[in-house]
Amino acid sequence: MLGPRVWSSVRQGLSRALSSTVGGWASGEGRKVDISGIYPPVTTPFTATAEVDYGKLEENLHKLGTFPFRGFVVQGSNGEFPFLTSSERLEVVSRVRQALPRDKILLAGSGCESTQATVEMTVSMAQVGADAAMVVTPCYYHGRMNSAALIHHYTKVADLSPIPVVLYSVPANTGLDLPVDAVVTLSQHPNIVGIKDSGGDVTRIGLIVHKTRRQDFQVLAGSAGFLLASYAVGAVGGVCALANVLGAQVCQLERLCLTGQWEDAQKLQHRLIEPNTAVTRRFGIPGLKKTMDWFGYYGGPCRAPLRELSAAQEEALRLDFTSNGWL
Amino acid sequence: MLGPRVWSSVRQGLSRALSSTVGGWASGEGRKVDISGIYPPVTTPFTATAEVDYGKLEENLHKLGTFPFRGFVVQGSNGEFPFLTSSERLEVVSRVRQALPRDKILLAGSGCESTQATVEMTVSMAQVGADAAMVVTPCYYHGRMNSAALIHHYTKVADLSPIPVVLYSVPANTGLDLPVDAVVTLSQHPNIVGIKDSGGDVTRIGLIVHKTRRQDFQVLAGSAGFLLASYAVGAVGGVCALANVLGAQVCQLERLCLTGQWEDAQKLQHRLIEPNTAVTRRFGIPGLKKTMDWFGYYGGPCRAPLRELSAAQEEALRLDFTSNGWL
Amino acid sequence: MLGPRVWSSVRQGLSRALSSTVGGWASGEGRKVDISGIYPPVTTPFTATAEVDYGKLEENLHKLGTFPFRGFVVQGSNGEFPFLTSSERLEVVSRVRQALPRDKILLAGSGCESTQATVEMTVSMAQVGADAAMVVTPCYYHGRMNSAALIHHYTKVADLSPIPVVLYSVPANTGLDLPVDAVVTLSQHPNIVGIKDSGGDVTRIGLIVHKTRRQDFQVLAGSAGFLLASYAVGAVGGVCALANVLGAQVCQLERLCLTGQWEDAQKLQHRLIEPNTAVTRRFGIPGLKKTMDWFGYYGGPCRAPLRELSAAQEEALRLDFTSNGWL
Amino acid sequence: MLGPRVWSSVRQGLSRALSSTVGGWASGEGRKVDISGIYPPVTTPFTATAEVDYGKLEENLHKLGTFPFRGFVVQGSNGEFPFLTSSERLEVVSRVRQALPRDKILLAGSGCESTQATVEMTVSMAQVGADAAMVVTPCYYHGRMNSAALIHHYTKVADLSPIPVVLYSVPANTGLDLPVDAVVTLSQHPNIVGIKDSGGDVTRIGLIVHKTRRQDFQVLAGSAGFLLASYAVGAVGGVCALANVLGAQVCQLERLCLTGQWEDAQKLQHRLIEPNTAVTRRFGIPGLKKTMDWFGYYGGPCRAPLRELSAAQEEALRLDFTSNGWL
Repeated sequence: MLGPRVWSSVRQGLSRALSSTVGGWASGEGRKVDISGIYPPVTTPFTATAEVDYGKLEENLHKLGTFPFRGFVVQGSNGEFPFLTSSERLEVVSRVRQALPRDKILLAGSGCESTQATVEMTVSMAQVGADAAMVVTPCYYHGRMNSAALIHHYTKVADLSPIPVVLYSVPANTGLDLPVDAVVTLSQHPNIVGIKDSGGDVTRIGLIVHKTRRQDFQVLAGSAGFLLASYAVGAVGGVCALANVLGAQVCQLERLCLTGQWEDAQKLQHRLIEPNTAVTRRFGIPGLKKTMDWFGYYGGPCRAPLRELSAAQEEALRLDFTSNGWL
Repeated sequence: MLGPRVWSSVRQGLSRALSSTVGGWASGEGRKVDISGIYPPVTTPFTATAEVDYGKLEENLHKLGTFPFRGFVVQGSNGEFPFLTSSERLEVVSRVRQALPRDKILLAGSGCESTQATVEMTVSMAQVGADAAMVVTPCYYHGRMNSAALIHHYTKVADLSPIPVVLYSVPANTGLDLPVDAVVTLSQHPNIVGIKDSGGDVTRIGLIVHKTRRQDFQVLAGSAGFLLASYAVGAVGGVCALANVLGAQVCQLERLCLTGQWEDAQKLQHRLIEPNTAVTRRFGIPGLKKTMDWFGYYGGPCRAPLRELSAAQEEALRLDFTSNGWL
Repeated sequence: MLGPRVWSSVRQGLSRALSSTVGGWASGEGRKVDISGIYPPVTTPFTATAEVDYGKLEENLHKLGTFPFRGFVVQGSNGEFPFLTSSERLEVVSRVRQALPRDKILLAGSGCESTQATVEMTVSMAQVGADAAMVVTPCYYHGRMNSAALIHHYTKVADLSPIPVVLYSVPANTGLDLPVDAVVTLSQHPNIVGIKDSGGDVTRIGLIVHKTRRQDFQVLAGSAGFLLASYAVGAVGGVCALANVLGAQVCQLERLCLTGQWEDAQKLQHRLIEPNTAVTRRFGIPGLKKTMDWFGYYGGPCRAPLRELSAAQEEALRLDFTSNGWL
Repeated sequence: MLGPRVWSSVRQGLSRALSSTVGGWASGEGRKVDISGIYPPVTTPFTATAEVDYGKLEENLHKLGTFPFRGFVVQGSNGEFPFLTSSERLEVVSRVRQALPRDKILLAGSGCESTQATVEMTVSMAQVGADAAMVVTPCYYHGRMNSAALIHHYTKVADLSPIPVVLYSVPANTGLDLPVDAVVTLSQHPNIVGIKDSGGDVTRIGLIVHKTRRQDFQVLAGSAGFLLASYAVGAVGGVCALANVLGAQVCQLERLCLTGQWEDAQKLQHRLIEPNTAVTRRFGIPGLKKTMDWFGYYGGPCRAPLRELSAAQEEALRLDFTSNGWL
């Protein structure tokens, strides 16, 4: 849990941001803020006419609030951030901030394609209450996004961000793995506190943990499918789409790992793999939202061009949950 | 949502398009506008402080105006459109429109990630003077962008666009090839007039030409490297980054192809492959802009996170031009 | 056509090989043998019990002998060479040699994984009557097959081969594109006469033609799908699986290209793309063999683990021919 | 075809396997043999003239014999099996069998491209003393190697093999991941006992363990880089190239995992990642053999076309060991 000293720093950072004296977050004594734990990357609910449904968002958060999550990721890939306007992105974060208890960390996705836009969005996210910014790699020109370019980008963002920065590598969407050497270099920045790695390569995750071991740098697994394995190699938490529907189970898996109950952890992990794949790689956000409907949350439609599932896909999705005993 | 003022403008744009006789277009009687020819995808000049430099943009256009281009692509991948704000995107198109003679076609890149944003941007592009909209495939969720999703997306955009729509497939950036069956279906839409295909697979280009032969559908090669081969299989033009620096030569290659002088065309094509690769896949927009500086245009810096070339890269870039007799 | 001088050299090379004084083929005055033209890569017929059916092989060759092919490729990818023993590979080549008129070129696939085995197979292929050896890139360790390794491999093979060597790049099978710089270096070897390139990237084909223009080096397109485009950028022929079933048409396409009848060539090329894809990438050798059965040749079964087509696949295969007017 | 003598031997081998109590195997009552543990995939030593050096092979085995390995893999990817003749492959296995104590399991790689050749090689491997056959996926026609083809292939091999079969999936070499559904189907075959999975995707490994949990099916990690994570999700051992040089350490990592000392395991695992990558993906067999030279084994040259490391590569290789405290 965040101690009083850390939260004091957070608040200082926030107030600095609000008073427009942007220029780096300093947590005293060089310790970075602790982001360990489980985070659902919340979806953005839409009405039938594709407007953001803030009421449903708050209802979902209220229901999710019963689980021992460390916090929430807002505007991650599952939040359909590329489909929101800048003001919608900020409004969503603002509403989540208001709906959350102060002890829940709000990680806000603030990545844009240009460095400048990312800096501006990050500052704005801080202003509306984000505790840290999760910054996805720029990707349209991924052929040019070598280590030098990415180090420059993230350094600039972290220099100017009033809140801590979490790197975010999600090759399935971006076509780009943030190179390990870039991660290691960036881990030395005082305002970069960790990485969310969604690639699923635990050799890489282990190597990042190993090579940043002197940097107080934290790795979050980007999916529930390799959460146990990530803990085993040194990750400290996870941002798991599946936690939107099986929140208790993902938190239980965390607890089993942290308390060294590896056999039970393994059994639970096994039963989460297919459901996790179903709501991520296999059926994407439409699959996740459909499942949310089943589990008592509001899923609802995605914005176009994302399409709802066909009947056959829905059946396959359901089977991935029933065959593992979750429905 | 689009407000009344916007839709009023949309209708004006639409009526202008329908009644337009610009560039020999005859859009009555179901014939689609003729977009054949060569287009440079213009770069967006920036000042040293990364502001759009509209003066330099106009100077470049003035110099490029001496070549027999059919028109210009604005806000294509080479225009760094993902790094511009919406208003910058529109302002750039507006300025280009003002700088261009009326007989030059202005193809404006209006693609966004969501269908709704793409519709709005397309409508706005029409308002500021674009003759047609070039719409890149949405890509962040490319794992979900199957034919059904893309057909739905483009149909919606074409239904609501006051100007003709050109499909745009550029897998090197998007990780996504617009599937041939989707292209064939979309070719039947009265407001979809063609495709810019940057993938370089001429078997695919030939197949698209073949399967849309009854649809008055036009294929533009997306790069000068396979321009001759594209003409040979039925393409009617090209959008060629290289035309920003070797405009006369790319137009000459077009002429040689159109007049059946294939031997000379081949010799010229050969000498353009390495320079073309250098300013596209190999060194990207930084390479293109550096070369523009050499050839008397304003290249200047890119916006971050794109980085300028190293001295070694610059030397390799130069060699690709000198070894082929262009510098 | 091969003139008497060339064939005299071939015979000299062969006799040298037979007398075990292997060490390079010298065609006098430095001119390389002319391999331009169309080649079907013949399939290997098997009986119901998976034995090589030499009788059917000869029957197929007899029927194919009516078309103006320049020669035949034996033991290419379509010959299922990885499924044959060394002695079967040689026996097949030997039988084909006996069945062919002397003026047809026999290109024999002699590639193996190790350099030593490739050299031995190449020498043996020469002994049983191959006119030239087509040597596929080694591929199991493709992660290590950089330019240096491949240049070393092919140089060794060419040094020791009694017959001319044709490079063979087929990334769909090998996961490896023979790098252009390696091709350019190897084109300078007196016993390397050309390349069969099956990758389908005509920008690359054009570049190879351009950069080897002083080397008397010949490029053969590896598939009928991009044959016209390859001619347009300087290829001199093709090795086309489709020629096993539409031999007249592929030869006609060649003639149209060589005589500059590009419009007719384009129409014919268009109608060959889908059938070609069907018997190569889409349905593989099982598709090719099934189609051979339809066209009056012996196709028959493949060796396991290749499987025959399902009824649905067979129907889709047939549609690719009927919809283009070939069945 | 297999002759009577061979089949007699086959039957003997089969009966030996069935009655065997080697290594705690109990193959009566439908239980599959236990293959859990660590295996080095031994390299094939060559002389300066590229002959197999059986003396050095035995010396290496003698040195490796001091570690608590469960057994040895012979003719895996690290054994350069594609570069050996069939008789060399068998002779190597035969020599290893003679050099090994009876309680060490000998897993022999017997995969070939055709099903028939694989069956014959598997039978022969059994005859020369292999305890089980490790069968790599056929790969040259990987585009056709769907689940149906692979299930058919492995079922045929397992039906006719006198020794248990271990599936082997190594996408870095083959371009092919044996599909999970095929693995699950094949796990039900009484003569298929497990899989060596070298892909490094632990989500997949966990899923395979989960979906074969009722089949007495065993998963071996194919590399030391994800060994701990694999144990964490239910693997029972590993085939680790790194065990050829850091045998004690890999066995220690196994022990730490099996005894639940996860913190120490993690620290050790971390220090093995870079050395492991160096002798596998980064520098391949040439890197592994060079390192063997450093650690007191005989590495020696590879067969061409594999090339020895450059001085710069050698230095980088060394750094991966020194920086982790192993040299």
